[in-house]
Amino acid sequence: MVDHTVKSFDSEISQLRGLIAEMGGLAEVAIRESIEALTRHDADLARKVVAADARLDALEAEVDRLAVRTIALRAPMADDLRDVIAALKISGVIERIGDYAKNIARRVDELEGRSKVEPITLVPAMAEIAQGMVRDVLNAYGSRDAMLAVEVIRRDEKLDQFYNTLFRSLLTHMMENPATISSAAQLLFVARNLERIGDHATNVAEMVYYAATGEYCSERDAKDEKDSAI
Amino acid sequence: MVDHTVKSFDSEISQLRGLIAEMGGLAEVAIRESIEALTRHDADLARKVVAADARLDALEAEVDRLAVRTIALRAPMADDLRDVIAALKISGVIERIGDYAKNIARRVDELEGRSKVEPITLVPAMAEIAQGMVRDVLNAYGSRDAMLAVEVIRRDEKLDQFYNTLFRSLLTHMMENPATISSAAQLLFVARNLERIGDHATNVAEMVYYAATGEYCSERDAKDEKDSAI
Repeated sequence: MVDHTVKSFDSEISQLRGLIAEMGGLAEVAIRESIEALTRHDADLARKVVAADARLDALEAEVDRLAVRTIALRAPMADDLRDVIAALKISGVIERIGDYAKNIARRVDELEGRSKVEPITLVPAMAEIAQGMVRDVLNAYGSRDAMLAVEVIRRDEKLDQFYNTLFRSLLTHMMENPATISSAAQLLFVARNLERIGDHATNVAEMVYYAATGEYCSERDAKDEKDSAI
Repeated sequence: MVDHTVKSFDSEISQLRGLIAEMGGLAEVAIRESIEALTRHDADLARKVVAADARLDALEAEVDRLAVRTIALRAPMADDLRDVIAALKISGVIERIGDYAKNIARRVDELEGRSKVEPITLVPAMAEIAQGMVRDVLNAYGSRDAMLAVEVIRRDEKLDQFYNTLFRSLLTHMMENPATISSAAQLLFVARNLERIGDHATNVAEMVYYAATGEYCSERDAKDEKDSAI
């Protein structure tokens, strides 16, 4: 009986982890496609990204239900309970990452038909970093890899530098081309959304690190200081 | 013995609710003071807001710990378990509201000494709505008041309209006064942060409504559609 209970718990945890892996995959696709839609002015693709977000919301709700049911039926203790709570939290963060991608996709309509804002050429490279952070933090979660989690946390600095560069570049562009101010303002938000995606991936990385080592990652404070730059 | 367990559970839920009320109060103060710091160019007050955010982070961690301990020790079922999970989620949202206020406070340094951006005069009234939503949704949570929760959800539309007005007003100001583009860009983010605070208060209101009635609030879809405007 005990063995049976343990096996059921393991299968529920696997199910939770599977749902989170699925969410991570969808969030990655959403980031990539939102940027594609933006750079190609592809309104159809943008609408697809916005519509696809509902699936992420539904998966988050499924994680919530399964987590609550697991806790209620199995009454897991200590490490197992922390695993379930972590799944609950991580699914919430991924859902938010999806929201940021959706926000980027929603800006495509605002940009379409307007004059080109040159710094947009920097956006795909920035998005690549953010997307890579999401992919790797999910891998770190799947394989409980504390070192990969630390690597993701460190990469956030690079993303922040990219953000600062893009931010300044957009302001300069606005000053020199007042006619593009409206489009450039949309890109300011896109840049900020990508920067926030990195922050959320970092958050998950910290949870993964904690779950794997039982200690808080020391990269955090440094990050928080740096974050105050803009 | 059963009676004793039930009482302990009630006392833990009360403790959780007390922590969340404390978090809500701090978040409200953070919003108010960040806007005061912004409009008065008060760098000291801005630093105080940034520093105070650590207390919100600590309280969220305390809610997490207490919630996990409550689940582990009391193994609550059905409604009680949902209450604990709701506390866990709501504390996460309030912590994020605090982050938005901190982000506003961090922009004070970027604005200081620069030429005045006229639309800043609209910011306090917008902040007032956001702060009122946070206050009222916490009251709705405290008194399990579904009607007050619906009222908060409806008020988000007013906040979004305010955001759209301020957004356009800032873009116009940028076009007419290119010298203030940098400061105006900071205010774009402030406006967006306030709009996001409203979204998060709305999120909590939806959880309160669900907890009180067992049904999802029908205001949600309308809200999501409207949100796509910008």
